[in-house]
Amino acid sequence: MARHYVTIKDIAKILNISVSTVSRALRDTYDVNQETKEKVLALAAELNYKPNFNATGLAKGSTHNLGVILPFITNYYFSTVITGIQEVAYNNGYNITLFVTNDSPERELAIMENLSVSSLDGLLVSISSDSDSCNHFQEIIDEGVPVVFFDRVANEIDTSKVMQDDYNGAFEAVEHLILNGYTKIAHIAGPKGMSFTEARLKGYIDALTKHHLRINEDWIVYSGFSQEYGEQDTYQLLQLKQQPDALFAVNDRKAIGAMIALKNKGIKVGEEFGVIGFTNDPMSTIISPALSTIAEPAFEIGKLSCELLIKHITKPKYFHGEEIVLPGKLIVRESSMRKAKH
Amino acid sequence: MARHYVTIKDIAKILNISVSTVSRALRDTYDVNQETKEKVLALAAELNYKPNFNATGLAKGSTHNLGVILPFITNYYFSTVITGIQEVAYNNGYNITLFVTNDSPERELAIMENLSVSSLDGLLVSISSDSDSCNHFQEIIDEGVPVVFFDRVANEIDTSKVMQDDYNGAFEAVEHLILNGYTKIAHIAGPKGMSFTEARLKGYIDALTKHHLRINEDWIVYSGFSQEYGEQDTYQLLQLKQQPDALFAVNDRKAIGAMIALKNKGIKVGEEFGVIGFTNDPMSTIISPALSTIAEPAFEIGKLSCELLIKHITKPKYFHGEEIVLPGKLIVRESSMRKAKH
Repeated sequence: MARHYVTIKDIAKILNISVSTVSRALRDTYDVNQETKEKVLALAAELNYKPNFNATGLAKGSTHNLGVILPFITNYYFSTVITGIQEVAYNNGYNITLFVTNDSPERELAIMENLSVSSLDGLLVSISSDSDSCNHFQEIIDEGVPVVFFDRVANEIDTSKVMQDDYNGAFEAVEHLILNGYTKIAHIAGPKGMSFTEARLKGYIDALTKHHLRINEDWIVYSGFSQEYGEQDTYQLLQLKQQPDALFAVNDRKAIGAMIALKNKGIKVGEEFGVIGFTNDPMSTIISPALSTIAEPAFEIGKLSCELLIKHITKPKYFHGEEIVLPGKLIVRESSMRKAKH
Repeated sequence: MARHYVTIKDIAKILNISVSTVSRALRDTYDVNQETKEKVLALAAELNYKPNFNATGLAKGSTHNLGVILPFITNYYFSTVITGIQEVAYNNGYNITLFVTNDSPERELAIMENLSVSSLDGLLVSISSDSDSCNHFQEIIDEGVPVVFFDRVANEIDTSKVMQDDYNGAFEAVEHLILNGYTKIAHIAGPKGMSFTEARLKGYIDALTKHHLRINEDWIVYSGFSQEYGEQDTYQLLQLKQQPDALFAVNDRKAIGAMIALKNKGIKVGEEFGVIGFTNDPMSTIISPALSTIAEPAFEIGKLSCELLIKHITKPKYFHGEEIVLPGKLIVRESSMRKAKH
């Protein structure tokens, strides 16, 4: 599991300069001073440093293994993404090595630190909530390992990314509630600080603003992604003096939790209280009334991320990466219809 | 992806004898005649054959990669099993390489034929429906690669296996329906010939027999595992002159399909028609009325299979494998209660 060769991280440590400086020195870019460049090259030669370019098989002898790092797999969204990745990988003769972080930044870091990059041609990554591994991803990219982010991306890192359009999806979901006559719309959000939590929150706020509805801070609840959190968040909303008459949940699991809380309180979903989610988990058709949602292109995201990664691997000189944002799709069911038939 | 070394399969082909004979000759067992043994050893030496024992890192330099071959991952049961496998693998410093067959015997075969066993320490396998890869699994075991089967096992192959108790789970499910007053109980089964389909069918038949209820062949429908199949099977049952008043479904997805069909026909689930599934998919708590089921120990099955595989890898001389059968657990909800409250 441990790395068996000298990395630019080692060189950076010994010379007490940044990894990015070492990387730039080795790539001979114009913005590193001559003295530093010489120091780096001398040490690299001394330590017999070989860029991962070779180690990862980019130049010769590919391993035909792609690593996938992601928070969960017991989850409709992620297991569908993996299925998309798997399809493209299989058709191109690659295998998939799976690393599950359990959405824990500590485990993500441990995985990154122990990653045997020499056995991988590239990496597909969806970061964990509160990830603090961004430096590790940057280092691995600097070492020459192709990395593509999907869904939960590290904004500050410059590489290919594949996401759904969280902002517009959220905007459309909330506007749909408004157009169906709901006016006091709450949002049960994901954890603060995550990029897609923020994008969906912004879509929510902008839709309310467009329709001249007031933003009520009490109606925005941040918590985790599970059904239980959705239930708790909703009980919290229902205890407010000023209660909402609808809610937009950051995902379907939380929306389903919300519906369970509403049912437990004897509130009729749809008729009395509108609910809309985000994902299009098969559960949304099973629950009664059926849940309106924004369908995420999970399979497509898996396919495209893997295709991009293979481009990075096979055409490292000609392909400089791209950001792809796929639209979601509003799916109207009974939970967001005032006159829903039960 | 292709194998880069001589296998016992090659030796068997050249000498026109069976793989198992070659394997036994190389292991120097008593039941191979001297002439054959000498031929095998001579050819093995000539071709520079090395048992995978070394190639897989059993003797030295482990790859710390475990392969997992399974039908699906977008499925609560299998994604939970993988999560269990992943936990044990992570804690023991192994990575998981995932091979998804899409439940297709052709893809399973292609995966097996292209498997780079030299990059794996061992293999966890759940075979596809109608798998015809048994010979391939046997060959790979003969070559010295540890293999553990889970859930969908190849009965004829002698290695470790981890399963749930399909027979007793099914028996308990059907007896529960009988004890709740249902007497005309149908079974919507999986595909014919799969071992767990057969075990659950046998549990169904034996429970009816124990309670002196007639076995009606029209009430046993074989098809696939999806919700859609469950729906179709149920419409088929409802077209019979002699209609059942309850059904046991081979899994929760089919049970949910059945409930949708019953609702579409205006039949009250529970009150008028009992339904019980098998899995304990989270969907079973979401659907209304909630679905009674046999909870499968999916996470546990993943954990135990991986632990067994690691034993095979680390103690090849002292560990000769075992078969573990884990009990399921009856979970009674509203769908199987005649006086269910809706």
